[in-house]
Amino acid sequence: MPQVAVVMGSTSDWSSMKKTTEILDILGVTYEKHVISAHRMPQELQAFGAQARDNKLQIIIAGAGGAAHLPGMLAANTTLPVIGVPMQSRALNGLDSLLSIVQMPAGVPVATVAIGDAGAKNAAILAAQIIALNDDDILQALNEYRERQTKTSIESEAELI
Amino acid sequence: MPQVAVVMGSTSDWSSMKKTTEILDILGVTYEKHVISAHRMPQELQAFGAQARDNKLQIIIAGAGGAAHLPGMLAANTTLPVIGVPMQSRALNGLDSLLSIVQMPAGVPVATVAIGDAGAKNAAILAAQIIALNDDDILQALNEYRERQTKTSIESEAELI
Amino acid sequence: MPQVAVVMGSTSDWSSMKKTTEILDILGVTYEKHVISAHRMPQELQAFGAQARDNKLQIIIAGAGGAAHLPGMLAANTTLPVIGVPMQSRALNGLDSLLSIVQMPAGVPVATVAIGDAGAKNAAILAAQIIALNDDDILQALNEYRERQTKTSIESEAELI
Amino acid sequence: MPQVAVVMGSTSDWSSMKKTTEILDILGVTYEKHVISAHRMPQELQAFGAQARDNKLQIIIAGAGGAAHLPGMLAANTTLPVIGVPMQSRALNGLDSLLSIVQMPAGVPVATVAIGDAGAKNAAILAAQIIALNDDDILQALNEYRERQTKTSIESEAELI
Amino acid sequence: MPQVAVVMGSTSDWSSMKKTTEILDILGVTYEKHVISAHRMPQELQAFGAQARDNKLQIIIAGAGGAAHLPGMLAANTTLPVIGVPMQSRALNGLDSLLSIVQMPAGVPVATVAIGDAGAKNAAILAAQIIALNDDDILQALNEYRERQTKTSIESEAELI
Amino acid sequence: MPQVAVVMGSTSDWSSMKKTTEILDILGVTYEKHVISAHRMPQELQAFGAQARDNKLQIIIAGAGGAAHLPGMLAANTTLPVIGVPMQSRALNGLDSLLSIVQMPAGVPVATVAIGDAGAKNAAILAAQIIALNDDDILQALNEYRERQTKTSIESEAELI
Amino acid sequence: MPQVAVVMGSTSDWSSMKKTTEILDILGVTYEKHVISAHRMPQELQAFGAQARDNKLQIIIAGAGGAAHLPGMLAANTTLPVIGVPMQSRALNGLDSLLSIVQMPAGVPVATVAIGDAGAKNAAILAAQIIALNDDDILQALNEYRERQTKTSIESEAELI
Amino acid sequence: MPQVAVVMGSTSDWSSMKKTTEILDILGVTYEKHVISAHRMPQELQAFGAQARDNKLQIIIAGAGGAAHLPGMLAANTTLPVIGVPMQSRALNGLDSLLSIVQMPAGVPVATVAIGDAGAKNAAILAAQIIALNDDDILQALNEYRERQTKTSIESEAELI
Repeated sequence: MPQVAVVMGSTSDWSSMKKTTEILDILGVTYEKHVISAHRMPQELQAFGAQARDNKLQIIIAGAGGAAHLPGMLAANTTLPVIGVPMQSRALNGLDSLLSIVQMPAGVPVATVAIGDAGAKNAAILAAQIIALNDDDILQALNEYRERQTKTSIESEAELI
Repeated sequence: MPQVAVVMGSTSDWSSMKKTTEILDILGVTYEKHVISAHRMPQELQAFGAQARDNKLQIIIAGAGGAAHLPGMLAANTTLPVIGVPMQSRALNGLDSLLSIVQMPAGVPVATVAIGDAGAKNAAILAAQIIALNDDDILQALNEYRERQTKTSIESEAELI
Repeated sequence: MPQVAVVMGSTSDWSSMKKTTEILDILGVTYEKHVISAHRMPQELQAFGAQARDNKLQIIIAGAGGAAHLPGMLAANTTLPVIGVPMQSRALNGLDSLLSIVQMPAGVPVATVAIGDAGAKNAAILAAQIIALNDDDILQALNEYRERQTKTSIESEAELI
Repeated sequence: MPQVAVVMGSTSDWSSMKKTTEILDILGVTYEKHVISAHRMPQELQAFGAQARDNKLQIIIAGAGGAAHLPGMLAANTTLPVIGVPMQSRALNGLDSLLSIVQMPAGVPVATVAIGDAGAKNAAILAAQIIALNDDDILQALNEYRERQTKTSIESEAELI
Repeated sequence: MPQVAVVMGSTSDWSSMKKTTEILDILGVTYEKHVISAHRMPQELQAFGAQARDNKLQIIIAGAGGAAHLPGMLAANTTLPVIGVPMQSRALNGLDSLLSIVQMPAGVPVATVAIGDAGAKNAAILAAQIIALNDDDILQALNEYRERQTKTSIESEAELI
Repeated sequence: MPQVAVVMGSTSDWSSMKKTTEILDILGVTYEKHVISAHRMPQELQAFGAQARDNKLQIIIAGAGGAAHLPGMLAANTTLPVIGVPMQSRALNGLDSLLSIVQMPAGVPVATVAIGDAGAKNAAILAAQIIALNDDDILQALNEYRERQTKTSIESEAELI
Repeated sequence: MPQVAVVMGSTSDWSSMKKTTEILDILGVTYEKHVISAHRMPQELQAFGAQARDNKLQIIIAGAGGAAHLPGMLAANTTLPVIGVPMQSRALNGLDSLLSIVQMPAGVPVATVAIGDAGAKNAAILAAQIIALNDDDILQALNEYRERQTKTSIESEAELI
Repeated sequence: MPQVAVVMGSTSDWSSMKKTTEILDILGVTYEKHVISAHRMPQELQAFGAQARDNKLQIIIAGAGGAAHLPGMLAANTTLPVIGVPMQSRALNGLDSLLSIVQMPAGVPVATVAIGDAGAKNAAILAAQIIALNDDDILQALNEYRERQTKTSIESEAELI
């Protein structure tokens, strides 16, 4: 029974969204992954959102690009937290994806992270931070991850040659 | 049995979308009007899109602002032509609305017009142009409208004083 | 006697606009294709627009980049629906093309689709949606296309490995 | 012992961030509120972040404008979820605030919501959605809030006159 | 027999384009003024451009906003120099006007000046600079104008109190 | 005694500005070419601008990128027409160059053309259009150039295969 | 013998640049103030830059808007540090001013601060920080200013009611 | 005892920031270099800023990308001058970095230079200009550097072939 659903609009988003799953693996967060195109599979989108809480999911992470409607429409169909990852689009470099995801009207939020790979990774960490509010194992994994991250940054200074 | 549905995400869009209905009235196109919030009324949105053709509608005009998902999600639920009108949003002046509507992925088009009032008016004219392909009365109304418009522009030169 | 004219400002737009014709072929929509540069062939542009309805065309699809005047000027010379496709330009990635096409003043609409290849494909689908209002064969082709598209998206989930 | 801290960089952000607290009140989420300027009070910022979990806070909501460093620097000092609200800035309308908040590097996420008042409201709802994962009272309040919201939208159609 | 034509797409551009005529008056450049809407009066536009040289015009100054096609289409119909003035548009503050005018493809230039009133004034000065290449009276007027302008700037320092 | 000076801020602009000289050659316009860096050679810039008219130059074409001050500062030092070509810059693709050149304050115009190679070519044509006001040979060369250009565009349609 | 020159392109910049002088007064930094229009007074600009060091100035603060060439051209004429303040322009809200000032090519830096009033104030503080490297009185004034600033921010929390 | 600290958020910034150190070497300015990630090493950041003056540093140069908080947060923790270098980010080409660094609120300035390599080089020159206010050797090195730079630009004209 996974804690997180990692959803994307197309398999072309997988090269970024894979980084979400890699961090979830590291942090010990369980997940399932899906392709749900907001525009090609609107019925599946709605059903997925409506059943998410009953399916014991805690968080939905949704990556999409261009006129990116997937995160917002999932959020419209559930009261679970939805994290939106703007894909780096071809023409406008993800500015369209970002605005389509973050500029939600009052009433239905999407927790938006950075464009592209950085955002895909941070979506996983944000999900873990939310789960860690009630899960000490995840919290410990997070703390260790952050400590390693800090240690790596500190040690990287030696590479400035 | 109206030919066009004029849909908007919120009554706050009505001051612009009213201009759509005013032009439709002038051109003799019949219409119904609705508030359907993509994010607050996702089930109604989907039902509306799915039944639109059966309801004998020919065209859907949808106005929305910010992360404007209404036109694209209606288009995802019907094969009728959907015309999207980007509202002039508060912070980003409609650039977010425009990109959220026009940057649809391949497979599901939205016929996008200009931001704000100009777009609201043009949505009506575009709808009439589509209907006029098989309706000589609308075509005649369109031709007369365009001729008056040209005549008004020509005559306006006298105002340059 | 083709239903649609696919027009572009330069042969350099053909790599994108070819995708329009490929989808039109799939959907069974007949078309002719032309190079009409708004700035190098303004007389041809005007003649083409003015005669389009008499030539039994139903829809004009026009692709152009940069200060993209072709779609708007065709729309100024006809009351047929004009679909504008913003080419991905070299310096500004199509933002200039998009704004030059979509921001038409009240009175003369252009049905604008996404920048680049996605828009080129969607222009064909939008044209078919318009024609399908009075053509059951095209409607059936559209429905089948959309169904295949949905099926492909659903099945693509298996590729997330 | 409040569940949420509502933090802002300056009292000039209060007219927006007040909307966060109004929604938190409606949803029954407890909160404290603070002015912590990232640039004028960096030591207080760091102390606040470092002690937030020990102080039994569950979520930090941070509003800031321009070169908005408050949300990201709080996130750097805690593993609690941090929700960032980009203020609508004077010169660039909040585009600077948005990019300064959302474009966090991999490793330290900020859950970013829309620019200005809509984002301030949605920050409260998002916080409630997170807390509701383990609090049935908040979940019920959320569900009722969303239902009223949907009902209000549906009924608003009558105002289109 | 005027030297310059001051053309605008709509009487709503007159409040800016009037500043063009005021500077032309000061510099002693003769002009005529016209409303020619590219989209509502395409035939008039083409006729005007085609006859401009025969009408002994030397320069065309064209102001337009939004998807501003007037300057570029006039340039397409004449080899006279065309100066384009981007109007400050409602939603996008003239960024759309600017890109629609300046981003002309190779082969047909438009001499573009600044957005709004500053550009309207500079269009007049630029026209005078061109005419002054073969008109010593205009050159003298220009030199005097520039000298007064410099003197005024120098003297304005006294106002810094 | 050349008619036009082609000036650029750096030899790195030469790959674009070379296209200016190629078109000037075709049109029979005489020119000289210079590197004058606004920021590294401010005295040379000022001297060049101040002596340009005495040197019998008629037009200055100036290409520059980034914070592109060369065209505007040349215009500040002469009353000859100055044509500005915004180079396609590395980070911002020439948007910075464009705004730095076109947004001149009232009083000192720069005739701005498109970003990059298209603008470099059009600068040459614009210069020829200005010179042709009093030079029938250049006018004839221009007319022939435009006719060939139109013919080439018309014939290019055959390549759409 | 003032330490800092506060220069602006026009008296219309004075409402912002006055804030620079107010902070300089508070910090005890001596200054003179000037209007030097880069485009209307290029000779004065060059002379001012060239003599600045001989005049015992230590820092030049330059405010300008639109195609803002003043800071960069002063920097081209001196090796004193030049601080650039982008004015909030009419059409593009200072984005043009910012890019025209900050995007200087390698070789000639301008120390750029924020658009508008915030930048005007910070220019004064930055100048004081530079002078304080060798002036203990200014350093003490700076430290006290920063401490008051922090104290004011801390105390402002009481206003959140 | 170095005069300048060159700090960057990550080793991935080193390819640009190396250019800072190369110019510092040429100008004879002493420096130390560090990796300090604002988000991964917030405690180290604060300690570094707080001790910078006691460590006899005169200037901090900080390069960072995306939501670039490093320069601003260092400035918040010291009254030494801080020079910010916006890295050219992946998705938005450094526009996010630039706005995150330059748009500092009143009270805490960051002296911002251009995006990417040009800015990295100019940060070094700006630092030298500041130090040269009280160091005649550095001033002489600067003057010689600028003279060579001017000479190189002048001589480069010979390469236009």
